[in-house]
Amino acid sequence: MTVARPDEVRRFNRASLLRLLHTGGPATRARLAHELGLNRSTIKMLVDGLATDGVVEERVPRLITGAGRPSLLVLPQPQSVVVLAVDVQVEHAGIALVGLGGAILGRNSWNLRGPGPDPDELVCRIAESAALLAQDLQLRPVAAGVSVPGVVRRSDGLVHAAANLGWMQVPFGMRMGQLLGVPVVVGNDAELGALAEYVRGVGRGASDAVFVSADVGVGGGIIAQGAPMRGSAGYLGEIGHMTVRPGGRRCHCGNEGCWETEVGEAALRRALGLPEGSPRGAIVAELRELQRDSDPVARLGEYVDWLILGLVNVVNILGAELVVLGDLFTTLPDAVVRRVEQEVLRRSLVGRALGGVRIEKSSLGADLKLLGAAEAAFEDVLVSL
Amino acid sequence: MTVARPDEVRRFNRASLLRLLHTGGPATRARLAHELGLNRSTIKMLVDGLATDGVVEERVPRLITGAGRPSLLVLPQPQSVVVLAVDVQVEHAGIALVGLGGAILGRNSWNLRGPGPDPDELVCRIAESAALLAQDLQLRPVAAGVSVPGVVRRSDGLVHAAANLGWMQVPFGMRMGQLLGVPVVVGNDAELGALAEYVRGVGRGASDAVFVSADVGVGGGIIAQGAPMRGSAGYLGEIGHMTVRPGGRRCHCGNEGCWETEVGEAALRRALGLPEGSPRGAIVAELRELQRDSDPVARLGEYVDWLILGLVNVVNILGAELVVLGDLFTTLPDAVVRRVEQEVLRRSLVGRALGGVRIEKSSLGADLKLLGAAEAAFEDVLVSL
Repeated sequence: MTVARPDEVRRFNRASLLRLLHTGGPATRARLAHELGLNRSTIKMLVDGLATDGVVEERVPRLITGAGRPSLLVLPQPQSVVVLAVDVQVEHAGIALVGLGGAILGRNSWNLRGPGPDPDELVCRIAESAALLAQDLQLRPVAAGVSVPGVVRRSDGLVHAAANLGWMQVPFGMRMGQLLGVPVVVGNDAELGALAEYVRGVGRGASDAVFVSADVGVGGGIIAQGAPMRGSAGYLGEIGHMTVRPGGRRCHCGNEGCWETEVGEAALRRALGLPEGSPRGAIVAELRELQRDSDPVARLGEYVDWLILGLVNVVNILGAELVVLGDLFTTLPDAVVRRVEQEVLRRSLVGRALGGVRIEKSSLGADLKLLGAAEAAFEDVLVSL
Repeated sequence: MTVARPDEVRRFNRASLLRLLHTGGPATRARLAHELGLNRSTIKMLVDGLATDGVVEERVPRLITGAGRPSLLVLPQPQSVVVLAVDVQVEHAGIALVGLGGAILGRNSWNLRGPGPDPDELVCRIAESAALLAQDLQLRPVAAGVSVPGVVRRSDGLVHAAANLGWMQVPFGMRMGQLLGVPVVVGNDAELGALAEYVRGVGRGASDAVFVSADVGVGGGIIAQGAPMRGSAGYLGEIGHMTVRPGGRRCHCGNEGCWETEVGEAALRRALGLPEGSPRGAIVAELRELQRDSDPVARLGEYVDWLILGLVNVVNILGAELVVLGDLFTTLPDAVVRRVEQEVLRRSLVGRALGGVRIEKSSLGADLKLLGAAEAAFEDVLVSL
């Protein structure tokens, strides 16, 4: 439990107001007063302060409703506070400059030469690319957020293990911080995906949600009581490595029958009858084709059963009301998603108690992790502005 | 995000100070000032107010260290704020009056006639027993907390389903509130067990911990970032109903191969070679015997494997640094617990990243759920005193 002192109240209120504008977009002073439970004179003082600093602008709203003097519309200024977002994937890296309010102001991306990129080389490339982008847009990021598909320590950005990148004990956050000269937050990609869905996607406003995504591996992020879970020391849970099939296929983590080996990219390839090693594009094309099939659930066979089993476990353990599917899972035929939703509801005690568990595909597309990385960076920025 | 207004600061600080005394016990004014980050004059004002209300007493500490005027010791007065704690089990019910600071001031308990107690009868019996106890001790509880082995909605204490009690849709919290005339909080027993361990047991101060207990069923409670998880609408996750053995034994929940069916009371009976239906006491006696066996892990056979598998999943999903074992699990031989700890560490990515996962038996014994129920009641009481 933290303790508020009178001199901290103003800073706290300023941060709350900024967060509201950042996540909710432009709002009238009256609306801000209502949502924050503050009186109008306090709001005026806070907004005036932010306007002087160039962080917001005020404007008379076009559409005036009701009698009396219209409440001024407060607009966050995207270019006034900018963070660098970095999305490291197995075969691809992307960066973006993201402004207050969450808009992507500019971006760049490139393919990595095969899996297992050299971390030092990658850090340099990111820093160079970021510098060029910032120069081009005449912006200066004040912090950076990085998404990595691996087990990451939050406090210092140490990548403990990122199996699909071939990284072990890489101090990625520290190196990026040295090159960029701004604070760097590194997070697990699924954790940041969950954060993005919670702030800007279909998980918006959900109190308890789980984000599950399949890339080469399978990862998960958890929103509990309206906040992203971090796990001990910032190590997020590895949902992909729960055992669902004792005695099943061997997983790269050393165990057998991990959920990842039953529902990840390789499993999807097997379920679709594609040859081992066929590219991601072939899987996606096949799944799009399947969307028109008369019985896509039957076509995918036991793949669907393992997907259901893992999600029942996740919902039962976490008491989640919403599951958001990301990455490869978003290309599953709708009929499969609806079947999974029905079965998860039928087979989970918690789902039945809640009277329903929604299973939705992510709506943020390829920008998901960039947006999550940006939000991770903004978390600290907004409280210290 | 809530917003603090200047007029709320004092109340907030008062509640923080009370919580510190309630969970940490007597402390000097200097220590309170240090822990809360408040200056000594603020502490004096708060403590004076609480002393006037009879909630604390001040005393010169016996052992005086250092030079200068000794800092006064502030003692919470257990009898000044009292809550009723209720522990409903399948074959047993217990009540206690618990004072500020967490001491049990008086108690009563009785066996229930077979499983499936009538909820209305039980509520009456609890209310009568509580009235007698309160009269006897000349105390008046200001709130009540109830532990129930089932899926419970936090907002109104609706027991959605308590399979082992044979209850469905029982408005237990509402009925208790009507009879007692004080606010009543009803919680899942494993959730409240986790809360008790976090506030008063081996989970004290752990940021991310899981409490797993085996009674007739298996339940779990989760501490995430220093706060108990509630799940959607207060429905806590049902860890016992994660599927660990696809195609395994049928569970009363309708699924197959639930963790509960592999590591609950019935599974322990099977592992020990005891006849079906042999009483709890026989299981406990047999396990105590096993403590002296040369290889208790081998004696329990695959029971240990299922225990490990479930805990690996829990640790991997939640990123927990500590697992606290409750109820029947506390009677497992130490050698079994150590083996489980080793294997969970070896087989969980998160455990390896953390460099260790502690697995400990609960130290709160039979009072665990009473203490958890009391804490649930105190949560609201302390902020409104």
